[in-house]
Amino acid sequence: MIPQKKIALIAHSWDLDKMLSVFILAIGARSFDYETTIFFTFWGLNALLKGKKSYKGKRIDEKLFTLLAPQGPSDLPLSKKHFFGVGTKMLKKLMKRKNLSSLEDLFALAKELGVKFTACDMTCGIMNISKNELIDGIDYAGVATFYAEALNSKMVLFI
Amino acid sequence: MIPQKKIALIAHSWDLDKMLSVFILAIGARSFDYETTIFFTFWGLNALLKGKKSYKGKRIDEKLFTLLAPQGPSDLPLSKKHFFGVGTKMLKKLMKRKNLSSLEDLFALAKELGVKFTACDMTCGIMNISKNELIDGIDYAGVATFYAEALNSKMVLFI
Amino acid sequence: MIPQKKIALIAHSWDLDKMLSVFILAIGARSFDYETTIFFTFWGLNALLKGKKSYKGKRIDEKLFTLLAPQGPSDLPLSKKHFFGVGTKMLKKLMKRKNLSSLEDLFALAKELGVKFTACDMTCGIMNISKNELIDGIDYAGVATFYAEALNSKMVLFI
Repeated sequence: MIPQKKIALIAHSWDLDKMLSVFILAIGARSFDYETTIFFTFWGLNALLKGKKSYKGKRIDEKLFTLLAPQGPSDLPLSKKHFFGVGTKMLKKLMKRKNLSSLEDLFALAKELGVKFTACDMTCGIMNISKNELIDGIDYAGVATFYAEALNSKMVLFI
Repeated sequence: MIPQKKIALIAHSWDLDKMLSVFILAIGARSFDYETTIFFTFWGLNALLKGKKSYKGKRIDEKLFTLLAPQGPSDLPLSKKHFFGVGTKMLKKLMKRKNLSSLEDLFALAKELGVKFTACDMTCGIMNISKNELIDGIDYAGVATFYAEALNSKMVLFI
Repeated sequence: MIPQKKIALIAHSWDLDKMLSVFILAIGARSFDYETTIFFTFWGLNALLKGKKSYKGKRIDEKLFTLLAPQGPSDLPLSKKHFFGVGTKMLKKLMKRKNLSSLEDLFALAKELGVKFTACDMTCGIMNISKNELIDGIDYAGVATFYAEALNSKMVLFI
């Protein structure tokens, strides 16, 4: 297969700094006119949460997973020096002072620029996350769909 | 070089969630008939341990490293919310409930499907891990062999 | 675009084990005569610090970020089992015993072999890191420059 003007990013982690990288890279790829897909898997799926957690219809252990997870893109911790939230708040403040976009802004911009958001349906299954807990306008796919895209992509990164 | 139907995955971490991704991606690649190699390096090497740790012929500090390492694929922690093993047990239970394969099953399936397992010989050297501590039927290679494979691969991921 | 004999590595983390992988892969790529660029971003930027931290002209919260960051390549922790520095010291000792190069040696070798070091200017902006805090002979670039390189590269890894 000849690689097309496509880029695929796997967002596996929920760390704010890694998620920022995912979105900055996705937006950058669109500015080079590459078709761009972000595959949200495992902890990365938390970035797609609507912001209000749902405990309905979940078993106790699934509820616990839900409780422990961050509450959407505005609630992601840092991968280093988190200090119970202080590090995250500080990074957000520093970004604002430099007029850099917040993750929420990058998220909205990526969507507007046509970045495709795909949720890993296996992870949804494991964590018992239902589609109405995640934001609208996203796709759901498994590993086969991922490969159908990735094997045609110019660059694939696991972040 | 024209990329061949090959995929190379670098397994650097011992986190259960990342190791699951490694194996799900490796198995997926085989189902697309891609030659697939997993390079186990640094902490990732722990997934290849036979399960019984060996302290023979090791110095004190090497023994300490051995003590601290997980005991093969059934003993890997999560990268987030580990809670002294509770998180890991919970994830395993959730996977079982959804009839999803455990890491051990994925491991066996990958092997059966012809995924090539390669251990980083430099890491073995640093940690003083001998070949009889690791499972049989694997290759040993350094960075040169890695590149000989990776530069011919359609996709290379560092996980 | 036809991929050229180029490799791009994104160094996002400051973990010693991951930074070792970055440099071993960069040096390996040069031995295959591939043009190699390391893009240091977020925490990875700490590997480029001169070693003496500067607090001049920084606000309180920027000073705190500076205080918490490792002090150049000789001060990086492990991603696992750090134990307040004991793990790192042990790994360094084990590497020395096996006559394996330290990160500082790998760093110097990479530079000598012509690996290009590029600092993410957005991260410098966020953290208020000035050019005189970082080592000499490096480039500064944003996401556009990254893509101009990466989209011509045979392999791109996010580490």
